Amino acid sequence: MKLPLLLAAVALPASAVAHESTTPTMKTYGLVIHGGAGVIQRDQMSAELEAQYRATLAEALQAGYAVLESGGAALDAVLAAVRVMEDSPLFNAGKGAVFNADGICELDASIMNGATLQAGAIAGVRRIRNPLQLAREVMEHSPHVMMIGEGAERFAASRGYEFVENEYFHTDFRRAQLERAKKRETRADQGTSSVPLDLSSPGISDDALHFIREEKYGTVGCVALDQAGNLAAGTSTGGMTNKKFGRVGDVPVIGAGTYANNATCAVSATGWGEYFIRANVAHDISAQMEYAAKDINTAAAYTLAKVAKLGGDGGVIALDHDGNVAMDFNSAGMYRGYMFAGRPVVVAIYGDEPRR
Amino acid sequence: MKLPLLLAAVALPASAVAHESTTPTMKTYGLVIHGGAGVIQRDQMSAELEAQYRATLAEALQAGYAVLESGGAALDAVLAAVRVMEDSPLFNAGKGAVFNADGICELDASIMNGATLQAGAIAGVRRIRNPLQLAREVMEHSPHVMMIGEGAERFAASRGYEFVENEYFHTDFRRAQLERAKKRETRADQGTSSVPLDLSSPGISDDALHFIREEKYGTVGCVALDQAGNLAAGTSTGGMTNKKFGRVGDVPVIGAGTYANNATCAVSATGWGEYFIRANVAHDISAQMEYAAKDINTAAAYTLAKVAKLGGDGGVIALDHDGNVAMDFNSAGMYRGYMFAGRPVVVAIYGDEPRR
Repeated sequence: MKLPLLLAAVALPASAVAHESTTPTMKTYGLVIHGGAGVIQRDQMSAELEAQYRATLAEALQAGYAVLESGGAALDAVLAAVRVMEDSPLFNAGKGAVFNADGICELDASIMNGATLQAGAIAGVRRIRNPLQLAREVMEHSPHVMMIGEGAERFAASRGYEFVENEYFHTDFRRAQLERAKKRETRADQGTSSVPLDLSSPGISDDALHFIREEKYGTVGCVALDQAGNLAAGTSTGGMTNKKFGRVGDVPVIGAGTYANNATCAVSATGWGEYFIRANVAHDISAQMEYAAKDINTAAAYTLAKVAKLGGDGGVIALDHDGNVAMDFNSAGMYRGYMFAGRPVVVAIYGDEPRR
Repeated sequence: MKLPLLLAAVALPASAVAHESTTPTMKTYGLVIHGGAGVIQRDQMSAELEAQYRATLAEALQAGYAVLESGGAALDAVLAAVRVMEDSPLFNAGKGAVFNADGICELDASIMNGATLQAGAIAGVRRIRNPLQLAREVMEHSPHVMMIGEGAERFAASRGYEFVENEYFHTDFRRAQLERAKKRETRADQGTSSVPLDLSSPGISDDALHFIREEKYGTVGCVALDQAGNLAAGTSTGGMTNKKFGRVGDVPVIGAGTYANNATCAVSATGWGEYFIRANVAHDISAQMEYAAKDINTAAAYTLAKVAKLGGDGGVIALDHDGNVAMDFNSAGMYRGYMFAGRPVVVAIYGDEPRR
């Protein structure tokens, strides 16, 4: 099926969007995606860049939906949707990932199968084009759940993966972002702490500024419900600009960045990873459904309030076994969208657009 | 204070042990430790080895209790108790850690402060004598929660840590364990799958056999409650014998191997790490207290039943904010113990000894 371009390229008016989260009367299937949460504001985004984001989000939704529509598995839909975003330079995952302090892209990803509670995660890989695919390989073709660094790449080699050079992931925007982060860090080291990032220098385009602002964010993720009623979740990221010391955020931490359980929900998170680990975001949302019978939107809002109380920000997408959707965040915006049988399609970016 | 040696060296009769888990009438403080769960059976343990385990567990309890008794913080007590077990060759953490498939010890650890929900974790370090101390360093002296591999060691160097050679961790027992695991693996590769480990070969002492049996286990951990009412948890491990590909288990995964929250409980887990990640063991126990008002023993048993249903085994120690203790496991045994103001001291190993 083809998504009408109008839906892909512009935000739908709020009136066209299903706001109720009651149990649908017929079996539904579909997926929810995010492309990162952060300081995403309408007045700081060029029309062209915004259109690119909306088109790529729509493309990712279509790729995942096509799998589900033909009777495919939620896991396959998650992979298909995330791959579009990993392959796009717009998001901080795969191509276009942020640079670490050494000017290298280091990628993390995790996936979970809600039907079996199987999970796979990789952290700190540098030469795998589609990290979420490798996380799935760990889940399905190893006795392990989590592999890190060179070891994970050796596993990939043993499974016949082709490697890309680290340069494949590099983009000029992310390099400018790293340089700015280092400059700010140097000033902070010199005692001028809390110096805001200077975004006024000549020679920096508006679109570059957009990427420079987003130091911690831009993770991508997907949650899906297939026609058999199975849930799956996957998340992929380059982590945090200028990260040091093999820093790993919430993305490869099962229960923090990713969780799926047919009995409750599937969750993929994006935001300031340290706070999302400390609040066990993805599992905390599921636990509220399991132990307190909360609905998915109430649960997501409660967990994000915990994150905010700790001092963190970001967002989540969550999908329960009945197809109810939450796309919630406490940052200014979050790239997001969903596509379900029998529902209006939503592609959204800003804070005043739909969250469920 | 000095623990009477009698208590240290022998298991207490069940009648001397506090079995009730009601709220104590006076403010209590103390700590619970584990030294790993696994196939630990009375008829397969020499009297001498058993005495060594009991003495070292008692020493760890004393070290942590001394901190608490003098008004110190739960976090410091956790560090003190775990350090004794990391420094002992008996446990799979620090000295005496298991070998990976390359014959190298790779260590994981994590810590969490229940008062602030701050957390720190390291995975895959090779030259840090006391990994839990480095996890605390990450928590308190970096903006990050989790660091992996060489990056984590670079952070340690930046904080002035002295490194040990990997050989410091090596023990003959663990080397024999690796060789047996590789031998079994080779046979399985040759189609003779499910071949049990041959433990009958001449030249292997009974004590060596004990270590050979424990391929996946032996993690150490501690949960503590201080006089100010703060909870903390820490866990440290060498992971799984013959592990490949940078495999990481539940220990450095906050919410799986370690969790602490003053509002609920502190938990440290030990067992088949992959299953403990998938079941989000530590956070799942806390979530049941938070969202379903379950007591700590009911919550721990429920979560371990989930692990068993997935096919995994192991155990947990858990301690709530009132000082109620759970030491539960679905393996044959678990090295464990606790020491509290106003309670009998418990040091236990086998399945028929106290679990709370």
